[in-house]
Amino acid sequence: MSAVSQKQLAAEAALEYVEDGMIVGLGSGSTAALFVKALGQRIAAGDLSIKGIPTSRETEEVARESGVPLIPIEQADRIDIAIDGADEVDGRFRLIKGGGGCLLREKIIADAADRMIVLVDETKLVARLGAFPLPVEVDPFGWTITAKKVFDALRAVGIARPVVDIRRKQRDSLDPFITDGGHYILDCACGEIPDADAAGIALSIVPGVVDHGLFLDQARVVIVGEDDGVKILEL
Amino acid sequence: MSAVSQKQLAAEAALEYVEDGMIVGLGSGSTAALFVKALGQRIAAGDLSIKGIPTSRETEEVARESGVPLIPIEQADRIDIAIDGADEVDGRFRLIKGGGGCLLREKIIADAADRMIVLVDETKLVARLGAFPLPVEVDPFGWTITAKKVFDALRAVGIARPVVDIRRKQRDSLDPFITDGGHYILDCACGEIPDADAAGIALSIVPGVVDHGLFLDQARVVIVGEDDGVKILEL
Repeated sequence: MSAVSQKQLAAEAALEYVEDGMIVGLGSGSTAALFVKALGQRIAAGDLSIKGIPTSRETEEVARESGVPLIPIEQADRIDIAIDGADEVDGRFRLIKGGGGCLLREKIIADAADRMIVLVDETKLVARLGAFPLPVEVDPFGWTITAKKVFDALRAVGIARPVVDIRRKQRDSLDPFITDGGHYILDCACGEIPDADAAGIALSIVPGVVDHGLFLDQARVVIVGEDDGVKILEL
Repeated sequence: MSAVSQKQLAAEAALEYVEDGMIVGLGSGSTAALFVKALGQRIAAGDLSIKGIPTSRETEEVARESGVPLIPIEQADRIDIAIDGADEVDGRFRLIKGGGGCLLREKIIADAADRMIVLVDETKLVARLGAFPLPVEVDPFGWTITAKKVFDALRAVGIARPVVDIRRKQRDSLDPFITDGGHYILDCACGEIPDADAAGIALSIVPGVVDHGLFLDQARVVIVGEDDGVKILEL
């Protein structure tokens, strides 16, 4: 079975966690989009009333097309559940996210939610984080200096040879990719991150770093799409 | 002697630290503006050639008017010295900055500089940081949620009753103040900050926090304007 079908199964399984009246954080990326579409179908069938908060302009678009009612985050006094994909998940439910560039809003919502549910296909499960390049969101002002500080910070937490690259709009473009918040992304190839907690703090305190793709204490449930169904892991 | 005259004396004393050929980070706020003007006079007199990097659009304006040549931060392979004011300075050269709303760019430049020199009048010297409300720069997305997390973070580091207010454009305006980077500022009245290092880390790791006004490891020289001259403190 393809990764796409595995993602679809995970997305459908996530509907089980959504209850009537909930405020639901809607993640970004391909798997989250499958969930939003499935959610729209459930709502259209008339047996579920929820309000969604999108983590990106892209997801906002998908939600509108799928008939998922949205509220601005400023109007939410709580977020019951956040449902999102991930680029890597380790055995302690720690994540790398941000491959799609929406990590800041995803983290704000995941962190605010009572419960974060992560949807992945089997390829995203890893023994140790770091094969996927870690996205770090930075303020454009002085980003070349910030990139050097990020390199130093990664070295200081035991990553021997980090490679820090600014993300471009397209592969052959010189223009930097710009996030929904107007920031840049540095993709940091680490190989392996020996101490994710230390890395998270070291990156957060670099001036110019807005946030980073290490989600270390947010996920409570991981739904893994497999060839013949889903595996549900709960903390 | 007034605080203004004390600031003027500090600004003039700072010129001693500027050497020919240096790249100089130009701080923001009233004291830094006095320094930039004094620097312009030295340059006009023909005995100093430097390049400045401004920490705000406001300072950029002052520098242009004062004839201080500027380079974009992206073109600086180093910053020799950063010269800036502060809202509070404690006995260990730790600062609260950001009263003027330029803390992010100020911190990026102070942190990148080989040496940061702080200019203050006597009223800014404190035994312990925290009487001045601590500015925290946040992404506008979900800022009400971020404000709650900031409150919790301050409580967790021993600040009993923090008061977290969004900064407005004017006193009677409902519109939030917007930084040069497009972010909001939360002014956090702490009374006293018992553990500034812990507070700095706790704030930095809150999703949505871009940076905060605690400058804990940047200042190397503090020039204090006094009634009859300046006092120079070096670490």
